[in-house]
Amino acid sequence: MNSEISIHINKIAALLNENNIDAILVGSNANIYYTALCFFRGYTYITKEGLFRFFIIRNNPAFKNPNIVNIRKPEEITSKLEELGLSVPAVLGLEFDSLSFSDITRLEKAFPSSTFVNSSPVLRKARMTKTEWEINEMRYDGVHQTEAYRHFTKVYKEDMTDVEFQIELERILRLEGCLGYSRVSGNLMEINLGSVLNGDNADTPSPYEFAMGGSGVSSAVPGGANGTEMKPGTTVMVDMNGAFNGYQTDLTRVWKIGEISQLAEKAHECSRRILRTLEKEGTPGVPCSALYEKAMEIAREEGLEEYFMGHNKKVAFIGHGVGIELNEMPVLTPRSKDVLAENMTLAIEPKFVIPGVGAVGVENTYVVRDNGLENITVLNEEIINLIR
Amino acid sequence: MNSEISIHINKIAALLNENNIDAILVGSNANIYYTALCFFRGYTYITKEGLFRFFIIRNNPAFKNPNIVNIRKPEEITSKLEELGLSVPAVLGLEFDSLSFSDITRLEKAFPSSTFVNSSPVLRKARMTKTEWEINEMRYDGVHQTEAYRHFTKVYKEDMTDVEFQIELERILRLEGCLGYSRVSGNLMEINLGSVLNGDNADTPSPYEFAMGGSGVSSAVPGGANGTEMKPGTTVMVDMNGAFNGYQTDLTRVWKIGEISQLAEKAHECSRRILRTLEKEGTPGVPCSALYEKAMEIAREEGLEEYFMGHNKKVAFIGHGVGIELNEMPVLTPRSKDVLAENMTLAIEPKFVIPGVGAVGVENTYVVRDNGLENITVLNEEIINLIR
Repeated sequence: MNSEISIHINKIAALLNENNIDAILVGSNANIYYTALCFFRGYTYITKEGLFRFFIIRNNPAFKNPNIVNIRKPEEITSKLEELGLSVPAVLGLEFDSLSFSDITRLEKAFPSSTFVNSSPVLRKARMTKTEWEINEMRYDGVHQTEAYRHFTKVYKEDMTDVEFQIELERILRLEGCLGYSRVSGNLMEINLGSVLNGDNADTPSPYEFAMGGSGVSSAVPGGANGTEMKPGTTVMVDMNGAFNGYQTDLTRVWKIGEISQLAEKAHECSRRILRTLEKEGTPGVPCSALYEKAMEIAREEGLEEYFMGHNKKVAFIGHGVGIELNEMPVLTPRSKDVLAENMTLAIEPKFVIPGVGAVGVENTYVVRDNGLENITVLNEEIINLIR
Repeated sequence: MNSEISIHINKIAALLNENNIDAILVGSNANIYYTALCFFRGYTYITKEGLFRFFIIRNNPAFKNPNIVNIRKPEEITSKLEELGLSVPAVLGLEFDSLSFSDITRLEKAFPSSTFVNSSPVLRKARMTKTEWEINEMRYDGVHQTEAYRHFTKVYKEDMTDVEFQIELERILRLEGCLGYSRVSGNLMEINLGSVLNGDNADTPSPYEFAMGGSGVSSAVPGGANGTEMKPGTTVMVDMNGAFNGYQTDLTRVWKIGEISQLAEKAHECSRRILRTLEKEGTPGVPCSALYEKAMEIAREEGLEEYFMGHNKKVAFIGHGVGIELNEMPVLTPRSKDVLAENMTLAIEPKFVIPGVGAVGVENTYVVRDNGLENITVLNEEIINLIR
């Protein structure tokens, strides 16, 4: 574990050097986990030379490391640095994008001689490609998430509502070891154990920035299942939580209630064709925008553009990085400047919303490898009929 | 709904006047909900005169209001204000405590002629006392949360782990209508559907700021149930999610596996005695710190101080406000400067951790009334034996 921590620290240190940042003080939950592989309350301090200390206010008893320094509040950090013989940094990186304005200004006051830069981009970049250890963590997630999905068909009962169905899926996932908590970046996503979308609810826009919408059962948390009965001729898109450790995978499969329209079946096959194509073309060096354009081209070629990535409301991405957080870098959008690199982990989700039927399409989590994308969420991709 | 919105807006406007803030721009999820009683992506703008507009980037289709102004980005707000004949505020309040540093600096740039103050305290204060409508929302939560708790005993099976037990409780709550998502304030709390603590796991400190700890099953999310078998002679403390609409109640009850020690039984009765005392003494005008001191006095009187509010690690509060977020103002700590006011809603949770047994104690959600605290989570408070 400590050697894996060193790899993460060294990756960050190299990026600090590149960006002329003397040191970084990490305080957001996801980045604490990235730097310590344990969650605690406090801060991880890393210099561009690769020195690091964990300044801990409230520890996790599971976390043991020779670099722990106990503090009561962040104002003690500079004097502790001096005691440790470490210089106070001239340029200190802080997570402007994930800590609150009050938290950042408090930290700035605690370092009166430093100047500050936003270190969120450095941390996003460090986390964008994964180590083999991290990929194995995600492989574990993929194995358990797909295993849970295999049991979803059997809990369906006629006349069930989408929420009732989702509740049984949640139970299966939890019994399989799903932690039931998913870290997401930013306040534009609020989610519990995932999304189940049946029929036209898939065509209801949501204020959140997920690929798909749904009205939810309350206007307080307006996303996902809405509590209506699942009717014959509709689809059920299941995009549920894959967090079984500090990392997570992202996986979508579709079920149907009886037979559905040819158009919906065709769109589902188109999603699979897009994935097969991107799996081949997604090699290091390919721009993220090219994957988006290729997916869009295939959808257009099949006359399905109108339904692609939403119908009433569309989103302008077909996938995203995934790891400690559900939504990481890169994002597969037409405007992305990122380029695929080996060991990036991507959730790719070409989805269609067919009016009167619902959402179709497949989402897998992939690792970018030399020869293309490696699927770490291998599972039957066909639409399974819930009525046997 | 719109008249309830007006009450919230006017409450905020009065506080803006008191604090010499010309207007406020609200962007955090919880405060968007407070000002619109719907969640959307965007900002609520409120002047000290009580004028308001909803600047919406991505709407919730359920939200209909004559004051909606569609925007693509926050930079459009000042020109929209001018178009609407509203002056750009000299002093603008922004939520420094809940929006990120990047979000706040972006908003500041969008108002180049304004000066800025932290409006988080104003919003916390507005939300600290509830209207009768809000109390009725919470009463609804209380009815459904207690109803779910009534069914918890029957899902226990011998040799179950704490996590297996929790999964069945989650299912019961969800089937009762629990949304499965709980808004919490700050990044010091990460929680899914709540906490189940069995035996000595209750004595494991956690880095989160909940009243009780637990190691969790992963050091990535180190709180709550840890996956060990529930053994005879131990207690199971259940503190699960009470969000059935945009508000929530907070409720804790305790079960036992067979008989437990006299000390544990005594501590549980002490918790109930503390609640009965505070229910009488918790009237408008009483300092929050006095409730804490009274609870501590009773625990001390019964020789139970050592176990009160944690054993290996203690927390310095016995309760907290609750409403849209699980953790609101006021906090019942010795250092609180707040004073009880009519229609505050409080979760009071005098809890004990007994080594070798587990956690005991009761938590109810109360409304501060003229003659004391009104319990809106009425439910048997005795420890129920899971082995019958």
